Amino acid sequence: MSRYAYVNGRYQPMRDAKVHVEDRGYQFADGVYEVCEVRGGRLIDERRHLERLKRSLSEIRIRMPMSPRALGVVLREVVAKNRIGYGIVYLQITRGVARRDPAFPGPQVPPSVVVTARALNQARNEALAANGIAVVSVPDNRWGRVDIKTTGLLPNVLARQAAIEQGARDAWFVDRDGAVTEGASANAFIVTPAGTVVTRQADGGILRGITRTVLFDALKAQNLAVEERAFTLEEAYGAREAFVTSASQIVLPVVRINGRTIGDGKPGPIATALRREFHRYAEAG
Amino acid sequence: MSRYAYVNGRYQPMRDAKVHVEDRGYQFADGVYEVCEVRGGRLIDERRHLERLKRSLSEIRIRMPMSPRALGVVLREVVAKNRIGYGIVYLQITRGVARRDPAFPGPQVPPSVVVTARALNQARNEALAANGIAVVSVPDNRWGRVDIKTTGLLPNVLARQAAIEQGARDAWFVDRDGAVTEGASANAFIVTPAGTVVTRQADGGILRGITRTVLFDALKAQNLAVEERAFTLEEAYGAREAFVTSASQIVLPVVRINGRTIGDGKPGPIATALRREFHRYAEAG
Repeated sequence: MSRYAYVNGRYQPMRDAKVHVEDRGYQFADGVYEVCEVRGGRLIDERRHLERLKRSLSEIRIRMPMSPRALGVVLREVVAKNRIGYGIVYLQITRGVARRDPAFPGPQVPPSVVVTARALNQARNEALAANGIAVVSVPDNRWGRVDIKTTGLLPNVLARQAAIEQGARDAWFVDRDGAVTEGASANAFIVTPAGTVVTRQADGGILRGITRTVLFDALKAQNLAVEERAFTLEEAYGAREAFVTSASQIVLPVVRINGRTIGDGKPGPIATALRREFHRYAEAG
Repeated sequence: MSRYAYVNGRYQPMRDAKVHVEDRGYQFADGVYEVCEVRGGRLIDERRHLERLKRSLSEIRIRMPMSPRALGVVLREVVAKNRIGYGIVYLQITRGVARRDPAFPGPQVPPSVVVTARALNQARNEALAANGIAVVSVPDNRWGRVDIKTTGLLPNVLARQAAIEQGARDAWFVDRDGAVTEGASANAFIVTPAGTVVTRQADGGILRGITRTVLFDALKAQNLAVEERAFTLEEAYGAREAFVTSASQIVLPVVRINGRTIGDGKPGPIATALRREFHRYAEAG
């Protein structure tokens, strides 16, 4: 686990990493976050993550607490202090500490900044990818602005827990029209019988994943057809392949959805190739 | 403000009241809360608030961290330490501290418990009630389980801020059918031209307010007709009266909705009477 955290200007041992009970992140989920992959000790797609962070903050009108450059320095310092070779770095920014009142505090209240990092087990992740994962579907009951990466993640928590209790690894949210929006912590993709890669268009219904965006470059380079559109569970059941993408898992093949086998039940060639090729298209900082 | 807080077993000066950055309340809004009125140093409707707390926890499967009786002792101790005569006590319970992972932590992780209290300015609240407040409407884009009192309040934060920037005090959420669900931190009521008191039925679309529940007893005692049903903004514009209810404000007359005057623009007799009579029906602990 993270041994050191950055909390509002100070690098601290993890056990001392605390925020005030009236931090608006704690009382209102009034904050946003980013998770960045670390590989060979370097941040993957830092620039894109910080750009998305800026957008998330702007959408809910929290000011950037420092420049992207300065934030990058903090991220790298936390990675270094924790000696992370392969893992993730987590950044959370909230609207700061103020007497509990839903309305915004005055401009004198600085945003809170927390950064942690932890190593991931690469062998375990590769084994997951080699076997593929199972997902189950849950109704998408989240709020209307999941395009903002906020810490209001209770629906995702409950979805993930439901998946695990059904022997699956992740959950796919399905909207009221029966279409898959995204996973509880990943974007969802299928490959049609004709070989087209399909993923939900990035409207208000999904988070515009950084890995998802970079993957489009990889798909283009491999001359694969891509469609950004809604797809139903039924279409997914009949897909040739399925997979999910996220910063911490890159590309993870899905071999079972709601107990139904996808394709031949093994990770498909497109997902496998994309996982292998991904880092040629990502930026290592 | 609160000078002392209860945090996970300890009473602490407010400035030292901190939780870990990996408290799931901070990273996932994985927690629930209650706000209880304090009047004459006594908790109002403590029993009902703790019952609702139990239900909220149960819905998201966090265990009660201690008995309602023990929680009541903590609430009263925080009220006493802060010497609150008139004000509120705030209680928040989260799924505890664990390495960041959306899935539930193991049963060895205890829930986190935070209690704060603060005095309210009674003269200011009475002046608010005497003048009535303005509200504006905002689209209800919250998640599907707002019947659970979770700390995932960012939509409420944004709604309240929008209201304030339009010179109003609170926001009313309006669903996709054009019906008012509830306020950003209160239940919404109107009085029809025929004198019937109307408020949204307590389905998944609203929080079942304690004040709302107690008010039904008061309405019954005054032989007033009540309907629990959806009402539109149009119906509200034509209402004889409008008001909101919450534990911290009890009954607050609404005299303007989206800039339109309700009734004669002054607090109505029913809202005023309900505010005056309310505490005859509430339980003082």
